[in-house]
Amino acid sequence: MKKYIVLMAVIFGFTIYSFSFASESVEVSHGPGITLLWIAVILIAAKLSGLVEKIGQPGVLGELLIGVLIGNLVLFGINTFEPIKTDFVVSFLAQLGVIILLFQIGLESNIAKMKKVGLRAGLVAIIGVVLPFIAGAYIVGPWLLPGLSQNAYLFLGATLTATSVGITARVFKDLKKLGTTEAQIVLGAAVIDDVLGLIILAVVSAIATAGSVSAGTVSIITLKAILFLAGAIIIGQLAAKNFGKFFSKINTGTGMKFTFALAFCLVFAFLAEEIGLAPIVGAFAAGLVLDPVHFKSFRGPEFAEELKETVESVPAEHRARILASVEPHSEKHIENLIEPIGYFLVPIFFVLTGINVKLETLADPKILFVALAITVVAFITKIAAGLAAGKVDKLIVGVGMIPRGEVGLIFATIGLALGVISDSVYSVIVIVVILSTLLTPPILAALLKRKTL
Amino acid sequence: MKKYIVLMAVIFGFTIYSFSFASESVEVSHGPGITLLWIAVILIAAKLSGLVEKIGQPGVLGELLIGVLIGNLVLFGINTFEPIKTDFVVSFLAQLGVIILLFQIGLESNIAKMKKVGLRAGLVAIIGVVLPFIAGAYIVGPWLLPGLSQNAYLFLGATLTATSVGITARVFKDLKKLGTTEAQIVLGAAVIDDVLGLIILAVVSAIATAGSVSAGTVSIITLKAILFLAGAIIIGQLAAKNFGKFFSKINTGTGMKFTFALAFCLVFAFLAEEIGLAPIVGAFAAGLVLDPVHFKSFRGPEFAEELKETVESVPAEHRARILASVEPHSEKHIENLIEPIGYFLVPIFFVLTGINVKLETLADPKILFVALAITVVAFITKIAAGLAAGKVDKLIVGVGMIPRGEVGLIFATIGLALGVISDSVYSVIVIVVILSTLLTPPILAALLKRKTL
Repeated sequence: MKKYIVLMAVIFGFTIYSFSFASESVEVSHGPGITLLWIAVILIAAKLSGLVEKIGQPGVLGELLIGVLIGNLVLFGINTFEPIKTDFVVSFLAQLGVIILLFQIGLESNIAKMKKVGLRAGLVAIIGVVLPFIAGAYIVGPWLLPGLSQNAYLFLGATLTATSVGITARVFKDLKKLGTTEAQIVLGAAVIDDVLGLIILAVVSAIATAGSVSAGTVSIITLKAILFLAGAIIIGQLAAKNFGKFFSKINTGTGMKFTFALAFCLVFAFLAEEIGLAPIVGAFAAGLVLDPVHFKSFRGPEFAEELKETVESVPAEHRARILASVEPHSEKHIENLIEPIGYFLVPIFFVLTGINVKLETLADPKILFVALAITVVAFITKIAAGLAAGKVDKLIVGVGMIPRGEVGLIFATIGLALGVISDSVYSVIVIVVILSTLLTPPILAALLKRKTL
Repeated sequence: MKKYIVLMAVIFGFTIYSFSFASESVEVSHGPGITLLWIAVILIAAKLSGLVEKIGQPGVLGELLIGVLIGNLVLFGINTFEPIKTDFVVSFLAQLGVIILLFQIGLESNIAKMKKVGLRAGLVAIIGVVLPFIAGAYIVGPWLLPGLSQNAYLFLGATLTATSVGITARVFKDLKKLGTTEAQIVLGAAVIDDVLGLIILAVVSAIATAGSVSAGTVSIITLKAILFLAGAIIIGQLAAKNFGKFFSKINTGTGMKFTFALAFCLVFAFLAEEIGLAPIVGAFAAGLVLDPVHFKSFRGPEFAEELKETVESVPAEHRARILASVEPHSEKHIENLIEPIGYFLVPIFFVLTGINVKLETLADPKILFVALAITVVAFITKIAAGLAAGKVDKLIVGVGMIPRGEVGLIFATIGLALGVISDSVYSVIVIVVILSTLLTPPILAALLKRKTL
């Protein structure tokens, strides 16, 4: 251990030495600069935080917590890492990270299975939107925060509806439970929630600004969202199949399959965002429609050659065993190729989410009390929605729907911008988001381990 | 084929439809936006351009040319892709791409081999800096562009010295010739060139601004650069070994090895840039000192288990064969894990390099003529430097040193900013950079194929 400390000291010294030179050296500001260092810091922090797995917690919790630590060092006067919060590129890479995560999760999901759970996911989604909205806008809002405008309560209710699927999806992925029906219902419900959230946001914004909203406007927004999703899945399936064939025909060697899959994901994420949905919905849909079968023809000739050789050199009775040990790898090849991009980008999203948690919002006892009460409501209403999940572990589905994450924050930010909600209501919402984000992973992990699904 | 056209039309229609909605939809501008689309466009363009490989050209030429096409569509009134040129994130990803490329090349290179060619690489580098500088500053500069200030000639000479290693490294990599002594000499010489370039830039800038430069200043800059490189390699070797051990001790599962290697590369690139060197020099050094041996202990326990099982089920006489077929893969594991990041980011660099080529600079016949003449000088002086390469194919080394790329442009931009060089001299430099960038890949590929090294 002593050796490492000495080594780290030397490297630290060397870094400082470089810094001191930098300030006086010739200005050749042509490079990517300090962002490189932030990415390295985030990646190393994320990996070190993986130690939480040794005490049975999902990796995502460690990433969030180390992010919270890094982001709040400023409270102890250490502002070394403050620039990360405003680094445009880091923020982009984080968003790309959650897009890649949902793409991976879409790849591991199965469209047939999603269709099977579609109805139940829809029920969970609708109840999971209606209950928190009514509770926030008409019950606990007016009760705990008396004297605000009706619009403020509407916005509070709206922020409680949004499900942030990234956290839950990571927990399921970390614990290798993505294949369960529970996971599929939560994923389906979260996508539907995003569509419903889009409608609610439009309605609430219209009421807040124009005082009312027409049924026609609501119908048009709804229609758009549904058309997009249906279009994405139908055209996406066609496109995946045919482009897969097309690209494997003009296969120009290494990386073609990877590039095709990644570009497909990016285009879908872009289109989703264009329509006003979250980009992750598009990425998830892209993963869902990309089926391993489209990539069969992508397997390199060298691979086939190698395999043939290996198999021929082994007696017939052992051939099946070798083929079996090789087959799963080639079948899962897209996932495997995307995986390193995930290792690179996904932790950036979760560590940055942690970094952006402002612990000082927890300092005002009155706000904290209200926030805790609303957090309880936020938990209970989503858990209640889980009851509609049918013959599965309803509690797991309900808890899976709890995280509010960045979508709730976006609603709140819009409300703040419209002047509808005050700074203190905004703080309340931030705390609810923090608590739902940080508490869900350990609870969900405990529930998933309690029983073998 | 007809089917694809119909399909593309449908998808195009769908995209337009999405766009038309976007403009009137609720503004929820929280996502990564159009940059996602640009990345997808660049990746797909790069892959389609891979068709040049079918006519025996290195992939990098295709990426450059399709970039030139995309970037100059504006000459035909199509300005769809213009925003790519100013997209901050795309530019960062491109720079990260060339960093990853040089890291990969460092990983494939060998520090012992580099040391062996060190002396000859040093000779090639020094001659490859001195000859173009003298030719540019004292011979062809004053001759072809009479009446400029002495400082303008100095800057012209300086821009001709810089070797841009990215292009050449890609050609060697595309044609699988990185292991040759020629490739090692070019890589070594390019790194030394970057250090020399730093010194020249400092000297020329000092002369241009202060009118003179002290021997002390030059010595300090030189010392810094040498200290950095020596430090990076010595401390880097220690750090790689010990951190490798440290991180494999606290191995928290998947992605640890990958994260460690990537963070190592990013920190080195950052430090290089801090000192005023190109970040790619740091990335190359990081790759050079990271040796597969540091990662032996990273192999997952599942892998060992699996391998054991497979081997035990097979008769003893076939075990060796299976182990042999597995071993190379695990040995090359870092390279394999970094590879998808390379597929993702490296093409962005080369396509963007192409996009930033301004074909309209070729329109003025007088400037074009001067530029062509200086390009010839730029070629000849670097080829002459290759003569110092010893018992190898000297022409390959010389041609490998030709590309000037972005380093030359940076020099020119500084000169323009200092008011030392005029717009027309700048245009001349841009054309020299374009020609040396676009002509090197096919020439080098032809030379490499002519003989089996």
